[in-house]
Amino acid sequence: MRPPFDPTLYLVTDTELCGPRPVADVVRAAVAGGVTAVQVRDKNASRRDLLALTRAVQAAVVDAPGVCVVVNDAVDVALLADADGVHVGQDDLSVVEVRALVGPDRLLGLSVSSRAELDAALALPTGTLDLVGLSPVWSTPTKPDAGPALGLAGIRDLAAAARAGGLAAVAIGGISAGRAAEVAATGVDGICVVSALCTAADPTDAARTLRQELGRSRPAEVTR
Amino acid sequence: MRPPFDPTLYLVTDTELCGPRPVADVVRAAVAGGVTAVQVRDKNASRRDLLALTRAVQAAVVDAPGVCVVVNDAVDVALLADADGVHVGQDDLSVVEVRALVGPDRLLGLSVSSRAELDAALALPTGTLDLVGLSPVWSTPTKPDAGPALGLAGIRDLAAAARAGGLAAVAIGGISAGRAAEVAATGVDGICVVSALCTAADPTDAARTLRQELGRSRPAEVTR
Repeated sequence: MRPPFDPTLYLVTDTELCGPRPVADVVRAAVAGGVTAVQVRDKNASRRDLLALTRAVQAAVVDAPGVCVVVNDAVDVALLADADGVHVGQDDLSVVEVRALVGPDRLLGLSVSSRAELDAALALPTGTLDLVGLSPVWSTPTKPDAGPALGLAGIRDLAAAARAGGLAAVAIGGISAGRAAEVAATGVDGICVVSALCTAADPTDAARTLRQELGRSRPAEVTR
Repeated sequence: MRPPFDPTLYLVTDTELCGPRPVADVVRAAVAGGVTAVQVRDKNASRRDLLALTRAVQAAVVDAPGVCVVVNDAVDVALLADADGVHVGQDDLSVVEVRALVGPDRLLGLSVSSRAELDAALALPTGTLDLVGLSPVWSTPTKPDAGPALGLAGIRDLAAAARAGGLAAVAIGGISAGRAAEVAATGVDGICVVSALCTAADPTDAARTLRQELGRSRPAEVTR
């Protein structure tokens, strides 16, 4: 059985953007402000460093037991850290392979940037995937290689299709506090943010503001 | 229990150097000439591509059942491919972590480039490691970031210490056919080659020549 997962405000870490602060410090502060889930992402770290980073993030949220920690891409690191889940992209190991490795008790998310990719995800055996990350809503400097922006209308359509197929859907890509409410209004289960929290001078305050914006458009908690 | 492992002539693949030939074709040809073990290494490949590459190499050696296929670094890929083992560097996941992931039935090798690194390897719990790769014998263009060359005397000392501690030892780094016999004479269990086979116009012939050179100095087969 998967752990309960609340993706309402889903922080994806960026080590450089957090700096010079340790990522775990930013995570701790952001969770205090209302972040509900954390994905540890560092494409430049060695697996050894990524494992240490993941464990530091897990320690930072240990007093917030509802907050899941998911590892981006590195299945081996997720297994060693006993993380709550893994999130992979279209170029990573296939989700069927990843599910075989992580077993039935971990969350598995997949980035999706088009209707065709979503249709492929929906065609997977039931229980393979838990969540799709729809991206990018808007273009974003933290992922310059992302595909064309989906826009709010695109997010709305893909989120509806994902949820009809039994998958949670989150939106990612260029979401600031000023835009959070309109993204939430598309019907996604949550929003992912990178810059809006990792570059914030006060991540607690920034997370609180994001949660308030999300609360303006929809119920604050979605637990699957 | 680990699979029987013969590291006498241990091919480490380099996708670029093999090109434009598929790596698996070079492996098949080299095994026909006497390669006894293969390590799939491609630091630039995505995990998805590395998994496909590993499976192609496994298929290429399926008619040579004594030839183990080991994956460099990527524990997740090794597990998914059900490879015979994993080889990691000093900056990869720690070998204790890797052993925890791969279980007791897979080979585990570690690159070692100094006496201090070897001593650390020998201090690990028994059964953690199977093999150390001593490197570099000489400096090599395929690994410009490798440490200072150990030379034949250095290899001799480290190989003796490794074997006294129950680990197999192979030498790697700049070994050509012309130098294979003197490396084998240091007492290592085998030699690793990259360029000498991956760039060979005829990998079968090149492997045969290497085996003949190795046979000049020591028994051809060492099975643990």
